Amino acid sequence: MQVHGKPYRTVWIDSETDSVEIIDQRKLPFEFKTVSLSSTSEAGIAIRDMWVRGAGCIGAVAAHGMLLAAKECLAKTTNTSDFDHLFRQKGEELCSTRPTAMNLRWAVERQLRECGSVSLLEEKVTRAREVAHEIADEDAEWCRLIGENGLPLLEEIFEKKGGQEPLHILTHCNAGWLAFVDHGSATSPIYAAHDSGIPVHVWVDETRPRNQGARLTAWELGQHGVPHSVIVDNAGGHLMQQGLVDLVITGTDRTTYTGDVANKIGTYLKALAAHDNGIPFFVALPSSTFDWETRDGVGEIPIEERSPAEVTHLSGVDAQASDSEETEIRLGPESSAARNPAFDVTPSRLVSALITERGVCEANEEAILSLFPEKREAR
Amino acid sequence: MQVHGKPYRTVWIDSETDSVEIIDQRKLPFEFKTVSLSSTSEAGIAIRDMWVRGAGCIGAVAAHGMLLAAKECLAKTTNTSDFDHLFRQKGEELCSTRPTAMNLRWAVERQLRECGSVSLLEEKVTRAREVAHEIADEDAEWCRLIGENGLPLLEEIFEKKGGQEPLHILTHCNAGWLAFVDHGSATSPIYAAHDSGIPVHVWVDETRPRNQGARLTAWELGQHGVPHSVIVDNAGGHLMQQGLVDLVITGTDRTTYTGDVANKIGTYLKALAAHDNGIPFFVALPSSTFDWETRDGVGEIPIEERSPAEVTHLSGVDAQASDSEETEIRLGPESSAARNPAFDVTPSRLVSALITERGVCEANEEAILSLFPEKREAR
Repeated sequence: MQVHGKPYRTVWIDSETDSVEIIDQRKLPFEFKTVSLSSTSEAGIAIRDMWVRGAGCIGAVAAHGMLLAAKECLAKTTNTSDFDHLFRQKGEELCSTRPTAMNLRWAVERQLRECGSVSLLEEKVTRAREVAHEIADEDAEWCRLIGENGLPLLEEIFEKKGGQEPLHILTHCNAGWLAFVDHGSATSPIYAAHDSGIPVHVWVDETRPRNQGARLTAWELGQHGVPHSVIVDNAGGHLMQQGLVDLVITGTDRTTYTGDVANKIGTYLKALAAHDNGIPFFVALPSSTFDWETRDGVGEIPIEERSPAEVTHLSGVDAQASDSEETEIRLGPESSAARNPAFDVTPSRLVSALITERGVCEANEEAILSLFPEKREAR
Repeated sequence: MQVHGKPYRTVWIDSETDSVEIIDQRKLPFEFKTVSLSSTSEAGIAIRDMWVRGAGCIGAVAAHGMLLAAKECLAKTTNTSDFDHLFRQKGEELCSTRPTAMNLRWAVERQLRECGSVSLLEEKVTRAREVAHEIADEDAEWCRLIGENGLPLLEEIFEKKGGQEPLHILTHCNAGWLAFVDHGSATSPIYAAHDSGIPVHVWVDETRPRNQGARLTAWELGQHGVPHSVIVDNAGGHLMQQGLVDLVITGTDRTTYTGDVANKIGTYLKALAAHDNGIPFFVALPSSTFDWETRDGVGEIPIEERSPAEVTHLSGVDAQASDSEETEIRLGPESSAARNPAFDVTPSRLVSALITERGVCEANEEAILSLFPEKREAR
């Protein structure tokens, strides 16, 4: 998508230097910075220290990290079995940087498998470069298809309200292109609608505690020219009651094959409000996000509890200062405890539809399996 | 309630100097400071610039401001009619500091009426002092009664879950004693339960955008020794799903005679989640908060929209600094717009009961009028 009027992805290979380039997301929205990763360990640091985040983006950066790994192996050995051993070690190193990230391990294993099936060492490196491209292109293409498949839903709602007034869409957290390689999941139908000429206005939940909405989604939408307003997470219900929200789209961190949606904490509250006000609540996801093992989202999905400091402290730029250095402030009494569950589960009964790269379906087992018949056969 | 182990009210008269003393709430929780108000205009500044806030507290400070006004009038004139004219002028001055605060005008008019019915000028001042005391004492007593009336509800829920495990109560915003003269509304049953020996733990919604929960409610509870944890506003629904919330109590800024509750933005979302999880949702209020004219809360109550800067910027103490000076940070891109509706309306169908100084009733017209039969007759 566009940054300062230029198209960007979150990770790419510089065609001249063959270096791996990423957008350093830590300082966004206050500073836009790209970084060259020149080694596997630098790729590992970028993932571990959250220079990049979001399932698709992490997977793609890991795939590119494995290209760097292959080049390092080639510099160290001329023996195939040594290469493979070292390559596997470097893959494990990468996987250990964020142990729960599904896409990270998936990308590393795909590289190990693909490069393992090639015998010439130089060709292993070539294959690693191809696979890195494939993984990034697939991620971008799946997200593009989510936009293509979601667009008719938005067009229908826009037409239903007369085809004139802006379509007001509420979103939570950042399921934007920064979390993937391009387009994003929740944002993809929004960008598709905007690019097709539908007047769109996005209500951006700030998404406490880490404020990915206020920081990343607002920045993304602004860079691409999509009108939007940041709101506190408390405001969505009221806006819906007043008829100021036409639909909600969020992403998801994990969706059960029965349609229960684990996503950033607070998603469930917006789904309840949408349901109470008869407003469609859509969840956009690449099919890699489905959990084909879990039936009962609320009962079975473990919810990560993160540091209380994310609740008690917050960062931003000093309102008085002219530079983009961030300052961290404490919000309340030092002696008060805090708790920080990071996700919640929205039961499928509150989800109007799932938007995937294969198409749109209702949030129930039968509908989901109709879209993914191979998973039915595997059961 | 207790501050540093000493009992305090939000406003009082120093018995030695006859000066009006308040807690300056602006710097809480980072600095506890009391301030002497020595003139009507100082009382006006304290109200206008939010050194004090909350309906009951504003009313009581205004009543005390009118005592200062009476003393100033006495120093200026020996003529009764001049006194009354000047006194009324000063009352209008006070009312203009926060034009929409119902309790402010109510307290000023009560002082005008009471002092107007006394003829000797010295006695007018004496009467103003008595009325200031009366208004503060009434406010405190009503809040105390809210606690007394709410306590059995909490006891019943505590017994129902076995009478051993802590009672987990979620509250939103600050409807604590800082918003009144003492005890608070939503907090009063909580303090009553805590003081009666029930183990209580409070989930404190931070309450964006102004963070009155993280700042004031957390501080209050901490000072009084009530166990509590601050959470982001997004977390309550998940905690309810996981069985970690036994009841919700909030205050209200205005409640229709049909039981619709206007309160701090985000209250509606918590009411939806409580309803979805079969958790009682109580609203505590002194009867002065009822709006006897309005039937349909969602449709009729005008919702104040406040400055977007409250959403885009936030204050706290620098996490690296050792002093209690506050720093303001900007949270997102400068170019992103923001919107800031300050209240929402929770429909009566989501409210389990109203807790008033007169007793507890269901949130519907018939039940409310049964508790306030004089309002039925006036209809």
